[in-house]
Amino acid sequence: MRVRAMTLRPIGTIRTAFTRATGTPIQPYRAGGSFGSVEIFSPFVEGLKDLEGFERIWLVYWFHRAAEAKMRVIPYSDTVEHGIFATRAPARPNPIGMSSVRLIAVEGNVLRVAEVDILDGTPLLDIKPNIPRYDTYPIGRCGWFDGVADGPVSADARFERTGG
Amino acid sequence: MRVRAMTLRPIGTIRTAFTRATGTPIQPYRAGGSFGSVEIFSPFVEGLKDLEGFERIWLVYWFHRAAEAKMRVIPYSDTVEHGIFATRAPARPNPIGMSSVRLIAVEGNVLRVAEVDILDGTPLLDIKPNIPRYDTYPIGRCGWFDGVADGPVSADARFERTGG
Repeated sequence: MRVRAMTLRPIGTIRTAFTRATGTPIQPYRAGGSFGSVEIFSPFVEGLKDLEGFERIWLVYWFHRAAEAKMRVIPYSDTVEHGIFATRAPARPNPIGMSSVRLIAVEGNVLRVAEVDILDGTPLLDIKPNIPRYDTYPIGRCGWFDGVADGPVSADARFERTGG
Repeated sequence: MRVRAMTLRPIGTIRTAFTRATGTPIQPYRAGGSFGSVEIFSPFVEGLKDLEGFERIWLVYWFHRAAEAKMRVIPYSDTVEHGIFATRAPARPNPIGMSSVRLIAVEGNVLRVAEVDILDGTPLLDIKPNIPRYDTYPIGRCGWFDGVADGPVSADARFERTGG
């Protein structure tokens, strides 16, 4: 069986007010006042049918401004190193991000969204409806996260790619 | 600024009892008795540090057996067509899956997991801790999902790639 090569194509572009990592909210729950839009490229607009009824959607996207992957990082929320896979830091081997944002409206090929923690110009890879039955589980134990205070509201430049 | 091309490299392989789409549970909440393991390739094992404390983790993976992308699909849970982005069907433009599975143990480069709804041999792209503060939101409205009964427990072959 021929398996498709693992290459990605952007299906759209995410537009927000955040042009640098520094000051960008960390996770949607800290991004209450942050609105944005998502421009969907024309071959994919047909796939938006019936999306509008969903209150929240997962945006799956490419961390296009993330620094090279590191296996150990000091995340925004702590002062000691953890394995990259035990954090949500963007400097990942496959720099794929996912954020559950609030869907305000679908206007043709544009999604109006809120609670956006994403950099302007980010390539969109996928949209999935956020369905509690599928995505929400009772969780009692959250590793090192259980031992730290609620972290900063917004990012700094530690995971941002520099230069060219 | 030079932006990295959007190509993926597997960081591991997911091992389960499911070798065909037909009979594979649809979503982790329907996969109560399904155990599996995840073999992490050696360059990435260092990134597992401190993962073990998390009760649930997101596996982000490549739907390697999914059929070609379609913009309209009849999902397992309904009898009428919806836009692909309003469903969780695997026949997506970028066939990226995400499942919140239960983490049982980390044994060297192997994760023991439960509530697995994933095909055997699936290439793993990323692991993220499932953190309720980041991933769980009160959701009142779930589009077409609100109008259908709880769907089938397991998949059929409708989104499986055939032939070679």
